[in-house]
Amino acid sequence: MNFPVDLIIRKRDGNALSPDEIRALILSYTRGDVPDYQMSAFLMAAFLRGLNEAETSALTDAMLYSGDVLDLSGIPGTKVDKHSTGGVGDKVSLVLAPVVAACGVPVPMISGRGLGYTGGTLDKLESIPGFRVALSVHEYARQLERIGLVMMGQTDEIAPADRKLYALRDVTGTVEFIPFIAASIMSKKLAAGIDALVLDVKCGRGAFMKERNDARRLTETMVEIGERFGKQTVAWLTAMDVPLGYAIGNWPEVEESIHCLRGEVIPDISELTLALAGEMLHLGRVAESPEQGRKLAQQAITSGAALDTFAALIEAQGGDLSILEPGKTRPGIPDPIEVRAPESATGYVADIDALIFGQTAVALGAGRTKKEDPVDPTAGIVLTKRPGDPVEPGEILARIYTHRMHSVAVHVRTIQSAFSFSATPPPIGSILLERYSAAGWTTSTSSESAVKNR
Amino acid sequence: MNFPVDLIIRKRDGNALSPDEIRALILSYTRGDVPDYQMSAFLMAAFLRGLNEAETSALTDAMLYSGDVLDLSGIPGTKVDKHSTGGVGDKVSLVLAPVVAACGVPVPMISGRGLGYTGGTLDKLESIPGFRVALSVHEYARQLERIGLVMMGQTDEIAPADRKLYALRDVTGTVEFIPFIAASIMSKKLAAGIDALVLDVKCGRGAFMKERNDARRLTETMVEIGERFGKQTVAWLTAMDVPLGYAIGNWPEVEESIHCLRGEVIPDISELTLALAGEMLHLGRVAESPEQGRKLAQQAITSGAALDTFAALIEAQGGDLSILEPGKTRPGIPDPIEVRAPESATGYVADIDALIFGQTAVALGAGRTKKEDPVDPTAGIVLTKRPGDPVEPGEILARIYTHRMHSVAVHVRTIQSAFSFSATPPPIGSILLERYSAAGWTTSTSSESAVKNR
Repeated sequence: MNFPVDLIIRKRDGNALSPDEIRALILSYTRGDVPDYQMSAFLMAAFLRGLNEAETSALTDAMLYSGDVLDLSGIPGTKVDKHSTGGVGDKVSLVLAPVVAACGVPVPMISGRGLGYTGGTLDKLESIPGFRVALSVHEYARQLERIGLVMMGQTDEIAPADRKLYALRDVTGTVEFIPFIAASIMSKKLAAGIDALVLDVKCGRGAFMKERNDARRLTETMVEIGERFGKQTVAWLTAMDVPLGYAIGNWPEVEESIHCLRGEVIPDISELTLALAGEMLHLGRVAESPEQGRKLAQQAITSGAALDTFAALIEAQGGDLSILEPGKTRPGIPDPIEVRAPESATGYVADIDALIFGQTAVALGAGRTKKEDPVDPTAGIVLTKRPGDPVEPGEILARIYTHRMHSVAVHVRTIQSAFSFSATPPPIGSILLERYSAAGWTTSTSSESAVKNR
Repeated sequence: MNFPVDLIIRKRDGNALSPDEIRALILSYTRGDVPDYQMSAFLMAAFLRGLNEAETSALTDAMLYSGDVLDLSGIPGTKVDKHSTGGVGDKVSLVLAPVVAACGVPVPMISGRGLGYTGGTLDKLESIPGFRVALSVHEYARQLERIGLVMMGQTDEIAPADRKLYALRDVTGTVEFIPFIAASIMSKKLAAGIDALVLDVKCGRGAFMKERNDARRLTETMVEIGERFGKQTVAWLTAMDVPLGYAIGNWPEVEESIHCLRGEVIPDISELTLALAGEMLHLGRVAESPEQGRKLAQQAITSGAALDTFAALIEAQGGDLSILEPGKTRPGIPDPIEVRAPESATGYVADIDALIFGQTAVALGAGRTKKEDPVDPTAGIVLTKRPGDPVEPGEILARIYTHRMHSVAVHVRTIQSAFSFSATPPPIGSILLERYSAAGWTTSTSSESAVKNR
């Protein structure tokens, strides 16, 4: 037995490894006993030969127990979190978490930063002046107990194997492999002390998963992992072809989220937020069904309870509460640059390409291409037109916010070209595509997308 | 373009890379600009997705030109080398090189060390007291010019990419891949300044290639590389199921080689040596055909010219010439331990397993399991019976030589168990299986294995 070469060779030859072998490999790698060059050979062999359900589960387990597993069992209530695989303009966590917490389900949310064209909840929260996302585990648990909501970044103690493996995957062409993606997401979520989990798996040109079948397989893999670890897990497969809502960029998305928490209905955000909130409230045992959960969530917005919870979150984590005052905003916002409709734009906005908006937002300073890049909290794009809206030549399509003025003319043209137009109103589908749970797949019904009136 | 991740991903997805891309990858790796962990991901992707002929040729080219390419064009004659893929008891180079050089074809031979159960020519030469295998390039060329024969180890300047890649393949489960093996062998041989090459590709349980089809593919790949680089290349596919000759171990094999050079006929050694010598003398333009070359080779042995050339080689490289005196041997040889035939041994030796002899020889001290291990030049096994020999219970089957006495009883039993017996003489096939050249495959004929009389 020549560890780990024997394991690499067996995987290379298409054999399944035992859970103990997977665990030994991952833990030896995390300790530094297995070097990067052997792990990368294993990663590529697994990528090309596949990992079965038991191997994927063992991988998740090894990553989960590579660090601290938080114990929130002393805090009353069923703790429920949500995870999104990432999209353009996806500020749903900022609305959803206060809504669910306001309804009495504790939400311990550990979020990530944006990388590439998809944003990250931590960057959005940090665009609120003073907001601290680096909490100790002790602060995390105490805040959850006190106000029912906490949103923080991954600590060094949570799933260190995942951090090390992700960095290696990124430079060895082994990122886009469903068992790795699923194990990476689920190990972090399971380590955070949750009781149940709702997943928002994005699919489309603005998502990591472009293909419906890949998104479905990722969904199934993650739900199966969750259930294997004794955590009820429900997933929604949702469309990510156009940006979610009107705002793209950290502070612009916070502002839009506050509007939503004040009761403004932005169709796709509302539809998605209520669907996910319904699931979380059902899993959190305050609603008898996802449908009832959705109604409770709507009430929490209408009553102002959700906005109050959001205010409590900002206050608890050191953020500047004055941003919630009507008419107030954060300082440092650059003057907007208008993107206007071309001469050919008569009729309706037919389509807008989420990927182009995501990439342009990064170029404006809202995102990062490398992990170390700083982000400009104020940079971004705010749409004034979305698919289905009537449009005339010269009307404003969007406003660009950036401190990088040197190539702004290029970005204006890029944004303009990301719009297509049609003489008649385009069909607008529901953002909710399919739902998956331990019971299997169900297709979105009209009642589940009741807010759909874009 | 995100070099080299894009190349890794394209190979991972089953695409062919351009020759320039392969070269850029290998040269960046050799310089240290591409780290081990990216190269190992590429190696595994190539292993599982394959490399086509153009990619394999580009790989060879990149490895060849990663270091010095020796120029022997100033030395008269067509320089011909032989390479064997390695077997148990394979001392053919020690006989063949002096024979060919004695016939007037310059032989610039760059050899390797033993690793695992196959021996290495350098270790055998170093069992001659004083023999130096580390020569400078200048010494190498001058000795070749002066006596027509030089045998040395690979220098740091020859194909450094191969050395670095081989070390990485060894620890990442990417050794047994024909394009890598072929490129590794051929890059070193092409860098040594040869004009033509004869390959001895071993196949069987004592060889690296166990399967005939794998051995055939390796043969074809190497010959095609040689021809692409403008060097005439001829290969023999030869059987490696039983040890070659009677001796296994460094000094025991040198002694047996001296016997062969003195004219003793040990059927499989003679058959193989004359076949390879015939090819080398034909490629070296001193014989009109391989058949005529074989006759010239036989004459060089009979006349004593080959033994004289071997003496000149030993003298030129600082070895102790007295080992060639009749009745003389090297100092430090341990007392032999006899392995006797069991009670069941009546009739004939039916078969002996080369792999068991090779592995036992390593355990006795004759080989290494790690590159850094020292070898005992005197350790080994000398058979007294080979397949086809009559045998009776209690007769000596073999003698073991070792300084590691602690587990010698185990080795005696292992060697005994490596013999099988039969009531009637077993069929003995030719060691020469098939011949391959640019003209294609031909099967061994009776005239080509004229010495076959075991």
